[in-house]
Amino acid sequence: MSEIKIVRIHAGVREERTVTAGTKAWELFADEPDVIAARLGESLKDLSYELVEGDEVESVEMATKDGRDILRHSAAHVLAQAVQQLFPEAKLGIGPPINDGFYYDFDVETPFTPEDLVKIESAMKKIVKENQRFERRVTTDEDALVELADEPYKVELIGLKGNAANAAEGASAEVGAGELTIYDNINRKGEVAWSDLCRGPHLPTTKRIPAFKIMRSAAAYWRGDEKNKMLQRVYGTAWETKEALEEHLHRIEEAERRDHRKLGRELDLFSFPDELGSGLPVFHPRGGVLKRVMEDYVRARHIEEGFEYVGTPHISKDGLFHTSGHLPHYAETMFPPMEFEGANYQLKAMNCPMHNLIYRSRGRSYRELPLRLFEFGSVYRYEKSGVIHGLTRVRGFAQDDSHSYCTPEQAPDEVKHLLNFMLSVLRDFGLDDFYLELSTRDPESSKFIGSDEQWEAATKVLEDVAAETGLELVPDPGGAAFYGPKISVQAKDAIGRTWQMGTVQYDFNQPHRFELSYQASDGTRQEPVMIHSAKFGSIERFIGVLVEHYAGAFPAWLAPVQAVAIPIAERHDEYLRDVVAQMKAAGLRAELDLSDDRMQKKIRNAQLQKVPFMIIAGDADVEAGAVSFRYRDGRQDNGVPIAEAIERIATVVANREQV
Amino acid sequence: MSEIKIVRIHAGVREERTVTAGTKAWELFADEPDVIAARLGESLKDLSYELVEGDEVESVEMATKDGRDILRHSAAHVLAQAVQQLFPEAKLGIGPPINDGFYYDFDVETPFTPEDLVKIESAMKKIVKENQRFERRVTTDEDALVELADEPYKVELIGLKGNAANAAEGASAEVGAGELTIYDNINRKGEVAWSDLCRGPHLPTTKRIPAFKIMRSAAAYWRGDEKNKMLQRVYGTAWETKEALEEHLHRIEEAERRDHRKLGRELDLFSFPDELGSGLPVFHPRGGVLKRVMEDYVRARHIEEGFEYVGTPHISKDGLFHTSGHLPHYAETMFPPMEFEGANYQLKAMNCPMHNLIYRSRGRSYRELPLRLFEFGSVYRYEKSGVIHGLTRVRGFAQDDSHSYCTPEQAPDEVKHLLNFMLSVLRDFGLDDFYLELSTRDPESSKFIGSDEQWEAATKVLEDVAAETGLELVPDPGGAAFYGPKISVQAKDAIGRTWQMGTVQYDFNQPHRFELSYQASDGTRQEPVMIHSAKFGSIERFIGVLVEHYAGAFPAWLAPVQAVAIPIAERHDEYLRDVVAQMKAAGLRAELDLSDDRMQKKIRNAQLQKVPFMIIAGDADVEAGAVSFRYRDGRQDNGVPIAEAIERIATVVANREQV
Repeated sequence: MSEIKIVRIHAGVREERTVTAGTKAWELFADEPDVIAARLGESLKDLSYELVEGDEVESVEMATKDGRDILRHSAAHVLAQAVQQLFPEAKLGIGPPINDGFYYDFDVETPFTPEDLVKIESAMKKIVKENQRFERRVTTDEDALVELADEPYKVELIGLKGNAANAAEGASAEVGAGELTIYDNINRKGEVAWSDLCRGPHLPTTKRIPAFKIMRSAAAYWRGDEKNKMLQRVYGTAWETKEALEEHLHRIEEAERRDHRKLGRELDLFSFPDELGSGLPVFHPRGGVLKRVMEDYVRARHIEEGFEYVGTPHISKDGLFHTSGHLPHYAETMFPPMEFEGANYQLKAMNCPMHNLIYRSRGRSYRELPLRLFEFGSVYRYEKSGVIHGLTRVRGFAQDDSHSYCTPEQAPDEVKHLLNFMLSVLRDFGLDDFYLELSTRDPESSKFIGSDEQWEAATKVLEDVAAETGLELVPDPGGAAFYGPKISVQAKDAIGRTWQMGTVQYDFNQPHRFELSYQASDGTRQEPVMIHSAKFGSIERFIGVLVEHYAGAFPAWLAPVQAVAIPIAERHDEYLRDVVAQMKAAGLRAELDLSDDRMQKKIRNAQLQKVPFMIIAGDADVEAGAVSFRYRDGRQDNGVPIAEAIERIATVVANREQV
Repeated sequence: MSEIKIVRIHAGVREERTVTAGTKAWELFADEPDVIAARLGESLKDLSYELVEGDEVESVEMATKDGRDILRHSAAHVLAQAVQQLFPEAKLGIGPPINDGFYYDFDVETPFTPEDLVKIESAMKKIVKENQRFERRVTTDEDALVELADEPYKVELIGLKGNAANAAEGASAEVGAGELTIYDNINRKGEVAWSDLCRGPHLPTTKRIPAFKIMRSAAAYWRGDEKNKMLQRVYGTAWETKEALEEHLHRIEEAERRDHRKLGRELDLFSFPDELGSGLPVFHPRGGVLKRVMEDYVRARHIEEGFEYVGTPHISKDGLFHTSGHLPHYAETMFPPMEFEGANYQLKAMNCPMHNLIYRSRGRSYRELPLRLFEFGSVYRYEKSGVIHGLTRVRGFAQDDSHSYCTPEQAPDEVKHLLNFMLSVLRDFGLDDFYLELSTRDPESSKFIGSDEQWEAATKVLEDVAAETGLELVPDPGGAAFYGPKISVQAKDAIGRTWQMGTVQYDFNQPHRFELSYQASDGTRQEPVMIHSAKFGSIERFIGVLVEHYAGAFPAWLAPVQAVAIPIAERHDEYLRDVVAQMKAAGLRAELDLSDDRMQKKIRNAQLQKVPFMIIAGDADVEAGAVSFRYRDGRQDNGVPIAEAIERIATVVANREQV
């Protein structure tokens, strides 16, 4: 038999090997049980792939991004197979892997019930146990159309093959740009138990699925288009080990417990009244405290850091946004115009154009730079109804938005200043696990303005500053806005989820379009660099993130109510009324619970409201001029003199202790 | 000759008299040189009026509202006579008295130049000196149309006589509902020197005009309608004495000096960029300090007074405003809707409907009342271009808006609380000369909702509370909003001008329309009373008023820059840099002037910027560890130790001293 030369790559080790022709990829990794597929250059292959001369074959383990996608896509096939066993009339849509799981869409007469989902999961388990083999088969459009004549959605996908519309939701998982392939599930008898149009790759067999679970079902339009038929989407998740699945299910449970929409209601922080419209939050008194404390904090910090507080209106004639270049570019994300007096007025979706007007309201000298303008800019962006989510994706929100105008020489220091400022702000809110993302232009695309030199220099500035922070820097090529590169801070919350927080954004565009200038020290007129930055990002969104991060149990400096005073009996009301008055005088947010509830119920209520400190008093306390502390976690501390109690709380607040 | 019985009223004294038929009004007041006209019931008459049996004739002195109107209207006639002498082709429009003066409109080929105005004033002086007699002559429509055939605008007015359109700008001064009259100016030879269609009354002669001045000219559409021809309006003023004229001119000069639009530019506080649109102010960094300090102050005060800070968006679907009753009622004062997703979204013009949603976001108990919600609500109201004025009349502004929800029994105390709170806020801003205005319903009109009992009770509450303040209470019958009576605070500024400040507004309407309720102590569901209140009113407007009140020289607690440090020579820079750093650390807004200017110029600049404290240092100061104070008024205070200097400024700031 003839021999071929290939390269094997595994665990970072690159090895040249000579193998007989006809060798399959799995043979290279036969001793590695974690390997489930092979990577050849850009493309992923089944382990059954037959090697050819010159191949460079890298192992793909299950516990990787690609590995999990393959696992989940295979699980989606098993799901579809199970559904068609139980519901033979079900027609197949698509079944891609998604973040943390997979789904498959089905055209069925009636939506699946919870009982159906239990049956489906059982049927899947059986298929997994049967250890069916995923077998790849190359076909032609003509043959596939005959074979899949009963599957109208697959027929439609074949028609889209190689078409641009291919990019439609998930469709690329089914039909790639290359060969058209079908995967057969082969049972132990060697029969084809089930088949699906698919570009692969897959696990070798169904038994290689270590752990999966069917989560829920929901309606979804075919190919995401509401003009199309409504299908039923079944969601599932699959993981490399049973432990990983358990952890995932725990994270979901924890996320549900922390859901800021639920806690927002329970803690009476905010609501989303239908009367206003979608994505327009209203802050109730307790949420108002949180918002106010955060605003005060971040405004004071901005002023300390040399920013100047300005104020601009929420609307403008549209000419301003044409000058900035946001119109017509961003027209779809802006609310429709209000037309009167022969002009179109737009609700602002960004504050920068108005800050530019302040900059150029008079001549500027290099002596004034960096000029740092800052405001709580309320902006309105038209988000589609489907993506609106609590406070984290809204239509109206306030940015703690700053624009630094500086000389090109000052830009590196200013970026550094902004980045360190932002990180220190986030640390004060108990977030300290970060990485940075550097969004740069796509050199192939024509949407980016500015010269190569400008992009290179600005990107270099951001890279250097990012490197100095010592944080991980994740590249995001092509992800920049059209007017300059950007660093964004990604922060991990208490349960390990990553949230995009503030950004530092270079801008080549607006200073030029607004003809901004300053007089340099040599008397010439120069164009400043503009650096956009938001530290919280959106205050609303940040509040949402914090509610989830703290699970509603805010540290005392943020807590809407810092201390609740609870009398053991009615005769202690007056005593505690005085204590509460002293606390208020010390600037604390204290309340006295005078409801008709009994003491135990009052304690329970304060716990449900996640109040950091309960101050309890009975006869002994009154006698001693003291109070008893009870903390959120149930710990107790008796006989603390009033002054010391106040001092103790005030210290926790002043130090922003994350208790 | 026959005798008639009449009543003479003068200086509050009512006297029955018997006079011969044919007696003129002036004969009753021949000994009273200040009397210039007569009041008979509702109507004003020339002193040449011939008395008839039963007349009750009251003297009208010049130094009264009616007297000045007559003086000014007579001056307007003299103005028109002078213009037609100098510009015989000028056609006459109308010439009414206005607040503090008068005007007359002319149709002329070219606008008047400043030189023309000087000539016109001279010609007027000559006419005054000639002591022409104003003589009333009754005519008919037919005769007047012939006589005034050359005056097309007068002809038009005759056509409008008795017509509703009569109420058009000033037209009622020319043609009343009664007889049509012409006034002739009779010279010493007994000839008619000039005539004008006019309902009168007038002074007896031109020489009775004690003091007048032509002020300026401006274009104005005939009858205020931009579809009509553009006329030239000449403005003048006239007063009962030369001193009163001087005082008026001084007030104007002082008002111009204090004009917040001018000072806003000079002190770099704010601007009104054309790019945004009319009535949309932008706060620059220095204006931003002012705004921030005021917001912080009034927010802290609200919280002290038991208000809870909430936050609501700037837009809502229009259904909310239909629920509140603002639509369609107030549609004209709101911006046009933005239509999308099948709904009309409105920029909010008031915050109350959104606060009502917070109130009803959960059940309320009597224990929670009064519930006081407060926010800086940015609202947008469509004001006509013509009335927009600097910050005092804008299209977008923030109200320090509160809504108190209380039981009917709590309402009197709540109104009292709000009114005293508001007055104490205004006093902190150096305003302490107030009167109150009580706006009540017009019992004849059907626009007012609520029962007689509700109006009476609520009006009584407001009256009683107003009386307790000891302030003057001016009734404003018919001036209430349709949903309840209101008290507004009118404050006099440093030059005696009155500004309407905050309001306390009863509301019978919205609690009902929003079906607001609370559980009373007896377990029944009851409707709360809602009391609207804004203390500053509009923050923007209040800033405008304060700029004028202080003529830009803000007390230190409000001053954007509280202290400027000025080195005598460059070698003192470092020393003062340290002093400024210490001041900043003490929370003061201090700057170091490092410009290339010489010391005297720096002092001058700080004076122009109206900075409260200049801190100067030279060799002696450096040696002594001291600084020299220089105040806005030029006073100086040398060798003050640094710590004492900082303490001195900090004390002035903390005490909100009005220096």
